[in-house]
Amino acid sequence: MSARVGVIMGSQSDWETMKHACAILEELEIPFEKQVVSAHRTPDLMFEYASSAVERGLQVIIAGAGGAAHLPGMVAAKTILPVIGVPVKTSTLNGLDSLLSIVQMPGGIPVATVAIGQAGATNAGLLAAQILGAFDRSIQERIGARRDRISEQVMESSSSLQ
Amino acid sequence: MSARVGVIMGSQSDWETMKHACAILEELEIPFEKQVVSAHRTPDLMFEYASSAVERGLQVIIAGAGGAAHLPGMVAAKTILPVIGVPVKTSTLNGLDSLLSIVQMPGGIPVATVAIGQAGATNAGLLAAQILGAFDRSIQERIGARRDRISEQVMESSSSLQ
Amino acid sequence: MSARVGVIMGSQSDWETMKHACAILEELEIPFEKQVVSAHRTPDLMFEYASSAVERGLQVIIAGAGGAAHLPGMVAAKTILPVIGVPVKTSTLNGLDSLLSIVQMPGGIPVATVAIGQAGATNAGLLAAQILGAFDRSIQERIGARRDRISEQVMESSSSLQ
Amino acid sequence: MSARVGVIMGSQSDWETMKHACAILEELEIPFEKQVVSAHRTPDLMFEYASSAVERGLQVIIAGAGGAAHLPGMVAAKTILPVIGVPVKTSTLNGLDSLLSIVQMPGGIPVATVAIGQAGATNAGLLAAQILGAFDRSIQERIGARRDRISEQVMESSSSLQ
Amino acid sequence: MSARVGVIMGSQSDWETMKHACAILEELEIPFEKQVVSAHRTPDLMFEYASSAVERGLQVIIAGAGGAAHLPGMVAAKTILPVIGVPVKTSTLNGLDSLLSIVQMPGGIPVATVAIGQAGATNAGLLAAQILGAFDRSIQERIGARRDRISEQVMESSSSLQ
Amino acid sequence: MSARVGVIMGSQSDWETMKHACAILEELEIPFEKQVVSAHRTPDLMFEYASSAVERGLQVIIAGAGGAAHLPGMVAAKTILPVIGVPVKTSTLNGLDSLLSIVQMPGGIPVATVAIGQAGATNAGLLAAQILGAFDRSIQERIGARRDRISEQVMESSSSLQ
Amino acid sequence: MSARVGVIMGSQSDWETMKHACAILEELEIPFEKQVVSAHRTPDLMFEYASSAVERGLQVIIAGAGGAAHLPGMVAAKTILPVIGVPVKTSTLNGLDSLLSIVQMPGGIPVATVAIGQAGATNAGLLAAQILGAFDRSIQERIGARRDRISEQVMESSSSLQ
Amino acid sequence: MSARVGVIMGSQSDWETMKHACAILEELEIPFEKQVVSAHRTPDLMFEYASSAVERGLQVIIAGAGGAAHLPGMVAAKTILPVIGVPVKTSTLNGLDSLLSIVQMPGGIPVATVAIGQAGATNAGLLAAQILGAFDRSIQERIGARRDRISEQVMESSSSLQ
Repeated sequence: MSARVGVIMGSQSDWETMKHACAILEELEIPFEKQVVSAHRTPDLMFEYASSAVERGLQVIIAGAGGAAHLPGMVAAKTILPVIGVPVKTSTLNGLDSLLSIVQMPGGIPVATVAIGQAGATNAGLLAAQILGAFDRSIQERIGARRDRISEQVMESSSSLQ
Repeated sequence: MSARVGVIMGSQSDWETMKHACAILEELEIPFEKQVVSAHRTPDLMFEYASSAVERGLQVIIAGAGGAAHLPGMVAAKTILPVIGVPVKTSTLNGLDSLLSIVQMPGGIPVATVAIGQAGATNAGLLAAQILGAFDRSIQERIGARRDRISEQVMESSSSLQ
Repeated sequence: MSARVGVIMGSQSDWETMKHACAILEELEIPFEKQVVSAHRTPDLMFEYASSAVERGLQVIIAGAGGAAHLPGMVAAKTILPVIGVPVKTSTLNGLDSLLSIVQMPGGIPVATVAIGQAGATNAGLLAAQILGAFDRSIQERIGARRDRISEQVMESSSSLQ
Repeated sequence: MSARVGVIMGSQSDWETMKHACAILEELEIPFEKQVVSAHRTPDLMFEYASSAVERGLQVIIAGAGGAAHLPGMVAAKTILPVIGVPVKTSTLNGLDSLLSIVQMPGGIPVATVAIGQAGATNAGLLAAQILGAFDRSIQERIGARRDRISEQVMESSSSLQ
Repeated sequence: MSARVGVIMGSQSDWETMKHACAILEELEIPFEKQVVSAHRTPDLMFEYASSAVERGLQVIIAGAGGAAHLPGMVAAKTILPVIGVPVKTSTLNGLDSLLSIVQMPGGIPVATVAIGQAGATNAGLLAAQILGAFDRSIQERIGARRDRISEQVMESSSSLQ
Repeated sequence: MSARVGVIMGSQSDWETMKHACAILEELEIPFEKQVVSAHRTPDLMFEYASSAVERGLQVIIAGAGGAAHLPGMVAAKTILPVIGVPVKTSTLNGLDSLLSIVQMPGGIPVATVAIGQAGATNAGLLAAQILGAFDRSIQERIGARRDRISEQVMESSSSLQ
Repeated sequence: MSARVGVIMGSQSDWETMKHACAILEELEIPFEKQVVSAHRTPDLMFEYASSAVERGLQVIIAGAGGAAHLPGMVAAKTILPVIGVPVKTSTLNGLDSLLSIVQMPGGIPVATVAIGQAGATNAGLLAAQILGAFDRSIQERIGARRDRISEQVMESSSSLQ
Repeated sequence: MSARVGVIMGSQSDWETMKHACAILEELEIPFEKQVVSAHRTPDLMFEYASSAVERGLQVIIAGAGGAAHLPGMVAAKTILPVIGVPVKTSTLNGLDSLLSIVQMPGGIPVATVAIGQAGATNAGLLAAQILGAFDRSIQERIGARRDRISEQVMESSSSLQ
C-alpha cells in the first residue's frame, strides 16, 4: 500500500527522535515512508520532495530538525499538504532554538508544531493519524482504542506508587 | 451548511487575535462556528464541547488561549479530532508562557501548535484548511490560488522599497 | 483517619519528585492519599477526583505535573479547595515549561505554585501543612519543631566546612 | 472585625498591582489589613510584621514584590502562616525576575506563588479566601457564587464576538 | 556599476530595519541591489536569486528576516558566497526567535549573524564592506575614515553630558 | 589577625562553590572567616551576622546562595558594608534564578554580583581583595603579581594547542 | 577636590541611565568625574582611561553599557581598582544581553554587577560609596542617614495606599 | 605560505571547540595561524594582535570565547578585517551568555557570529573560506566539492535508517 505519511528528518542523527513518530504510524497501521532530507545540505532534494508530495499520494508530512530548523517551514512553503514539525533537542539550547525556528512561522505558511524531542515525535505520529482519522473512521477507532489502553495503564499505575 | 471547523477561545479578549483565524476560513469558504469556552471558568462546557465535536460534524478544532493556556490541550484530551492551538500574546511574558503551555504536551495527546499571536491565528485558519484540503481538491485549489496572489504581492513589493 | 490532603501526579514517573511531598506529610502526621491522575490521559477521572474532593473530606490538594502541566490548573477549576502545583523538572526545558504552565493562571482560578522539582515537592507538603496549621495548633507546633531542628542543623554545619 | 489576611507590598508603586488582591477580599467580605513593608528598606519592620502575625490573628499573608523580590520568602521564613507571593511586573525583565525570586524557594520554607501582575494579585486574594474557605463554609459559598457568575459571563460573551 | 552586494529581506515591513544596511553601503560607495524575497512565500524566487548570485557578480549577500527566519540560512544553502543574516525584531519575542533561527545553523552552511534590529542592519552593511575591504584598499580606507569620525564624535559627546 | 572579609553561604552544599572564594583570599593573604548562614532557615542569625559585621571589623562580605537567593540582598539590607553576591548554580535553572534573585536589587540597597558558579566565587574573592586594595598598596601588589602570572600562563598555553 | 570615582558610559545615550549614579555621588558628597568612553569606538581611549585610573587618584570605577556590553569587563582587565558594571536596558532584549555580557566574567577579572537600568545605576553610586565608606566613617554616616530617611518614607507611604 | 586566517581563542580550554575551525581550514588548504589570546587576561596582547593583523597579511580573524565573551568584539574594534565570533558553550548558561555577548554588538563594529559550540566553529572555518573564496575561484571550488560530498552523504544516509 502506498505511503500516506512522509516522515523526513534533517540529519541521520535525528532518527533517534523521529523513530518514535514511525513507531506510532506502524502501531496504527498507517503506511508511511521515511527519508533523510536536509534543508541546508540537500536543498534541491527538499524542494523536489515537497513539491512532488501531493502527486505521490502523501496526505501529511512530518518533518523533524534541530537548531536553526528550517526543514519543516521550507517543506511547508513548497507543498499544500499539512506539515507537522518536530523540534529536535539540541546539545546547546536544549531544543528551544529548534522550537522557535519551527513554530514562529509568518502568517501564510503554517507548520503544525509539537513538543521538543521524543514526546513531540510520538505526538507527530498521533497528529498525522488524527488528521487522516478525520476522514477515516477505522483509523479513528484505532486511535480511540489506543487512548483507552493508555488511560487504563494510568489508572493501574497508582497502585505501584511505592 | 454545517460547521466543519470549530474556533474557540478562552476569553472574549482573545477575539482580537482569533478573528484572524476566522477571516481565513471565511476567505476560503470553509464553514465554521466560533465560541468563547474557558478551560478554567467553564470546564464542564469545555468537556461537553470537545466530546460532542465529532458527532456535531466538526473535523478540526482551533483553540486559542493565553498564559497558563490549558484550553487546546484539554480539548485535545477529550476529542479525537486534530486540535490546533494558538498561543495568545500575554502582557507579561509576551506569549512565551502561552506557547510552552500549549506546545509541550506529553506523548499521547498532540496539539498542533502555531506561532504566538496574529500570525499564528492566521496560520491556524490556513492549517485547518490544509487539513481539510488533503481530502478536498476544491479547498486545496483555493489555498493554492491564495498562495499565488500573496507570492505576486511579495514580488511587487520590491518596487516600493524606499 | 481519613485523608485531609490529596496528592496527585500526572504520571507514575512524577513519583520520584512527588514522594518528597508525601514524606513531609508523613513526618508531620497529616493523613493523605496519593494517586496518579492524568489531565490528558484520564481527563474524566481528573474531573471526578476534583469535584468530589470536598465531600470526600480533603482540605488541600497537591498536584504535580511536567511539561504542558495542566493538572494543577484543571483540578483548581473543578474544586473550591486550595490547590498546590508542583512543576516537575523536564528533560528538555528543565521544568521552565512546567513552571509557566502552572503559575501563569488567569485571574479567577489560582494555583499555589512552588519551586521546580524536589525542593518544590517538599515545600508543597509543608505548605499544605501550614494551611491546615492555620486552623490546627498541633500541626503548627510540629512545623515549628521541624523548623527549629533544621535551623540547628544549619548552625552546626558551619563547623564541617572544609 | 479584626483582619484575617495581611496584604503587604515592597513599595508604594506595587499598590497598582496589589489593590486587585484587596478588591477580591472586600468582595468576599474577608477582613484584611494592608501595609507597605520593604524587605530591603525596612528589614526590621518586616521581621516584626512577620513574627507577630500569628498573635495578631492573621491566618494568611499576601506579599507582593518586584525584581529581586525577597519580601514573600523572608516573611515566610519568619512566620508559620501560609504566605502567598505575588510577582510584580518589572520594567526590564517583565516580572520573570520577580517570579523566579519568589517561586524558587529552597526546601523548608514554601511560598505559594501566583501569576505575574494583576491576574496574580486577583488570584492571591482568591487563594487566601480558598484557604480560609477550607474551614469556613460561608466563605466557600461566596467563592462558589462568584465562580458561577463568572462562568455565566463567559458563556454570554460568545454572543458578542464580532 | 554592477551590484557587488545583494540586500534582500523577507517582507516589505523589514525595510524599516534593512534600510540601515543600505545606508551604510551608499555611504561607503559600494554598489548594491535590494529586493524583497520571501523564503516562505516566494521559495522558488529565493532559490533562483541565491543560485544566480555568483554569476550576476555579487560577492556578498545580506538577508534580513524575522520570526522563524529561514531566508538567510536557505540562501546560504544555495550559494557559495558569504551570507550575512540580520535578525529583525518581532512583536512577540523581540527578535530572540529571529536570532536563534538565523545563528544556530548546523555545521556545513554558515550564516554570518549580526545583532537584532537596526544596529544589526547597520553592522551588516559594515561587515559586507569589511569583507570587500579585505581585497580592496580603497574601501578599507573609507571604513577607516568612518571609524575615525565616529571615534571623534564619541570623544566630543562627553562634553554634552548633563 | 582578625577577619577583614566574611564569607557566608546559604547551605553547606554551597561550599563546593564558595571554597573558591576562600582559596583566593588565602592566596592573597587576606584574613577571612567563613560560616553557613541561611536567609530562610536561620533568619535571625543572618540579621545578627549582618548587623554586627562592622563592629566585628569586617570590611567586605561575600555571600553565596542558590535558587530564590535572598541571602546577599538581605545581608546588604542590614549592613553598610559592601556585599558581594555569588549566584550558585542550581540543578533546575542552572543558576539563572540565583543570578536574577541576587542582581535585580531595587534602588537603595546594592549587591555587587559576580558570575554564576565557580568563576563567580573566584571573582568574589578577587573583588573583595580589590576593594581592600584600593586602600592597601600591598594587597594591590599581590593582585598585580597574580595577574602577571596568569597573563604569562595564557601566553605559554598557545604552544600546547593540538 | 580630585575625583575618587570615575563614571564612564559606552555612549551618550547611556547618560539617561547613568545620571542616576552621578546623582547619588553628588548627594553623598563624593567627588567624581564622568565621561563617554566606548569600548568599541574608542578602544585606545578606554585602555588609557583604565590604566591611568590609579595614578589619577580614582578608587572606584563605574561603567555602564548596553547590548554586547564590553566596557566594564575590559576596563576591569586594565585596572586593579574595583569596577562596577551597570547593564543598560536595550530596546530588543531589555538588557538581558547587557546583564550577561557584564556579569558572566571568567575567573580572574571580576566586575561588580548591579541591576539592569535606573535601579542599577542608583545602586552603582551607592555601592561605590559603600566601598569608600568601608574606609571612611563620614561617608558611612551619610549613607546611614540616607537609609534612615528612605526607611521612614516607606513607613509613611502605607498611609497613602488607596 | 603565510597565514591568511588568524584563529584565536580566549582560553586553552576553548581549543576543544576551536579545533573544528582549524580542521576546516586545513581541509580546504587555507593557511592559518592559531593562538590563545585572552581579552581579560592578556588585553595588551589582544590589542597588539588585532592592530597588527592587516600588516601581517591576515585577511580574516576567527575568535572564540565563552561567558562574557569580549574577545571577538574587542578584536573587531581594533582591526578593519572581518572578524568571525564563535560562542563557546558554557557550563552554566550553555553558551547563551557567550552568544549574546558576541552577537549584540552596537552599530559601528560588526562581528560575524556563528552558532554556539562545535557546529559554530566548523562554520567559522567555512565562513572564512567563503569570504576568501569570493575573491579566489580555487577556494570556491574546494568548498563546492566539499558541499557535493556532504550532500551525497546525506542522501546515502537514508538507507541506514533503522
